[in-house]
Amino acid sequence: MDLTRLETLGAAQAARAIAAGEITSGQLVQACLARIREVEPAVQAWHYLDEEHALAQARDRDERRAAGIACGPLHGVPVGIKDIIDTADMPTEDGTPLHVGRMPTGDATVVASLRAAGAVILGKTVTTELATYSPGKTRNPHDAERTPGGSSSGSAAAVAAGMVPLALGTQTNGSLIRPGAFCGVYTYKPTHGWVPRGGVLKLSRTLDTVGVFARSLEDLALAGEQIAGFDENDPDSRPRARPPLVATLAQEPPLPPKFALVKTHLWEQADPAVREAFGELQELLGAQCEDYPLGDSLKDAWTWHRTIMEAEMAANLDLEWERGRDKLSQPLQAQLGRGREVRALDYQKAVARIAILNEAFDELFTRYDAILTPSAPGTAPPAATTGDPSFCTLWSLTGMPALNLPLLSGADGLPLGVQLVGARNADARLLRTARSLVAQAEAASH
Amino acid sequence: MDLTRLETLGAAQAARAIAAGEITSGQLVQACLARIREVEPAVQAWHYLDEEHALAQARDRDERRAAGIACGPLHGVPVGIKDIIDTADMPTEDGTPLHVGRMPTGDATVVASLRAAGAVILGKTVTTELATYSPGKTRNPHDAERTPGGSSSGSAAAVAAGMVPLALGTQTNGSLIRPGAFCGVYTYKPTHGWVPRGGVLKLSRTLDTVGVFARSLEDLALAGEQIAGFDENDPDSRPRARPPLVATLAQEPPLPPKFALVKTHLWEQADPAVREAFGELQELLGAQCEDYPLGDSLKDAWTWHRTIMEAEMAANLDLEWERGRDKLSQPLQAQLGRGREVRALDYQKAVARIAILNEAFDELFTRYDAILTPSAPGTAPPAATTGDPSFCTLWSLTGMPALNLPLLSGADGLPLGVQLVGARNADARLLRTARSLVAQAEAASH
Repeated sequence: MDLTRLETLGAAQAARAIAAGEITSGQLVQACLARIREVEPAVQAWHYLDEEHALAQARDRDERRAAGIACGPLHGVPVGIKDIIDTADMPTEDGTPLHVGRMPTGDATVVASLRAAGAVILGKTVTTELATYSPGKTRNPHDAERTPGGSSSGSAAAVAAGMVPLALGTQTNGSLIRPGAFCGVYTYKPTHGWVPRGGVLKLSRTLDTVGVFARSLEDLALAGEQIAGFDENDPDSRPRARPPLVATLAQEPPLPPKFALVKTHLWEQADPAVREAFGELQELLGAQCEDYPLGDSLKDAWTWHRTIMEAEMAANLDLEWERGRDKLSQPLQAQLGRGREVRALDYQKAVARIAILNEAFDELFTRYDAILTPSAPGTAPPAATTGDPSFCTLWSLTGMPALNLPLLSGADGLPLGVQLVGARNADARLLRTARSLVAQAEAASH
Repeated sequence: MDLTRLETLGAAQAARAIAAGEITSGQLVQACLARIREVEPAVQAWHYLDEEHALAQARDRDERRAAGIACGPLHGVPVGIKDIIDTADMPTEDGTPLHVGRMPTGDATVVASLRAAGAVILGKTVTTELATYSPGKTRNPHDAERTPGGSSSGSAAAVAAGMVPLALGTQTNGSLIRPGAFCGVYTYKPTHGWVPRGGVLKLSRTLDTVGVFARSLEDLALAGEQIAGFDENDPDSRPRARPPLVATLAQEPPLPPKFALVKTHLWEQADPAVREAFGELQELLGAQCEDYPLGDSLKDAWTWHRTIMEAEMAANLDLEWERGRDKLSQPLQAQLGRGREVRALDYQKAVARIAILNEAFDELFTRYDAILTPSAPGTAPPAATTGDPSFCTLWSLTGMPALNLPLLSGADGLPLGVQLVGARNADARLLRTARSLVAQAEAASH
């Protein structure tokens, strides 16, 4: 452990060091703040950050530990929160001029869970406009001319730039996996319904999912375990035992995992570098990996996703439309305009497809441990857009758990993401499968 | 107990007598079948009834008891099942020529629960066309020229005519409370989400509710307790302890209950006889009953209900529309046609109103135990229609538990229903409140 560079510690490492008394939360938060001062001018990951308030939380954590009060699994560890997730002690402004000055009345359920686990809520990270497509100020830490991806731009960039070991984001189409891929960080989109969404800006009940960015699978599991859980107030939450993500991740898979390399109808739109890199990965995995072409068969799924997302956004952003349409970006106005015209019949038929799609995929998961597919069609594009979410769309629609694994790089040297998708409600197994894949990829690269 | 007229026994009475060995299930079912043979030609409550199969179930129950196998709370008691609720051993034809010959692959969850409690599934009762408005063959047992109400026509009529002590029905607008009122039987529409709907014809996820007809509150509580419960497969089901309906019903209320006499904007459309009867009821209750006029303030709620119901019906009956529109009645075609044109925006906004409405009613239930309001605008109208469901609409929309209490009668001597509505998830308290009201009304009439 490099005590001169505490900001490089992972969340689990840091929590262990704090629990063991090797470092304090105050020292860790100081190191993160110093790193932020250094790189924030170029990256611009933060929408709100009050250094004093962060340090005060860290002092409180250190005092509690000194007083012998039981410490949670994230005791003293700083976390960044996407600025569409409510925080009782910081504004939450949703990336839109319409919500400037908005002060939530309480913590989102996930923020309350993190605090209960001992975390320090470091600050609020930049989101695109209302968590949709129009970019915020954040730039890609690997290349300031490129986008970090969106909509969880600041969270992905902050973790990638070493400003904070953990950050929360959300995904409705590709807003976790895509910025994770572009910024080269580990990313976890849990099974839809696993993480309660109280206090999170609602775009689409059917699709919205809260997830995590970190620099290791271990940290994804640790944070995921804290924020998952039943919440009677989230209508898609179901009662389940707390998932043993950390314990399962630490196990060896009973057999070498088998991967289905899923090529959708978008495969040909991926950069040659992506297709080449996946060819090499497939070669490396040998008999563990088989092609599973979906081809054109599921093409309509992208239309169903769009129907659902646009119809639900139109309803959830109806007040913004009615009261401040002219303060919304042109692309968002166009999107909401389309959403307002969707027929309830088409909307409901699209929603009904989700269960049928999942049944079809059940068969795949009896034969394979996970789906292997690109996170995005290439590396991060220029900063004028947040890039193409379409490689994430099918997995947002089905609500399957997905990971971004930063295992590859493009011809430009920038990160290329491997997306690993698991069966619904089998998030722990997905993490364990990912660990095995990461180990194989790392062994091969040495 | 009149052993020569076992068909007049209530479900709880009968279950006790069977458990005590005073009668057998076979004798009880024989008595019900004899009563059916007698009155069915006029009432026509049954869509499917196989005497031999009913008696075979009864023999099985009697053999199990004789063998010392533990008996459930409905052991040996016959129950009628509305013909939109699946039964593995009988066809379920949904009141439409489109589904003639339809043989379900299994029991609906509620039927499985009744069988687990020991019930004999006597037969399938007549439903209107696809549980909507176009009447089936059933007539009102009190007057064959009148409608029994719908859509749970056969279930209400069968219980009223003494053919069976218990029957299941469903309500999306007024399909439990209204036939209960017209036929003069006790009726229980549970809190939306309490009773799982697996294997029940789906018209509207947001509104559909399975409920019970019986000839006493005790029987409603007994059957309600068997069919309520969490089911992960019903998306509106939430995990809760089994509601202690029977035990709570048996308690005295801690204080004399207070009633809010709710007069909606429809009040003036009620028959003078209804308004007069409610005036007398109010007088009887004295300080226990206060006017709580909603007047025009909630008028839009009827529009929200219609938007939701028609939009969801259009999606759920899309196959019937696409493949056999010409076999649907004209009114249903018109309704589905409207539903197909609803915008997803209006649909979602209407759904979002439900939670807001319920919050508004929470305040009422801090001051009153239950809402008192007519079940229907009058007694049963002629059999050409199933009557007006609008006095039930608000309580279907909000998903509050409701009862029909057959306490009043009209100028024509036919039953007039008192609708008692409770706070969501407080079904046990509602039943207890009802018992107290029934006792007061009965004491007054003696």
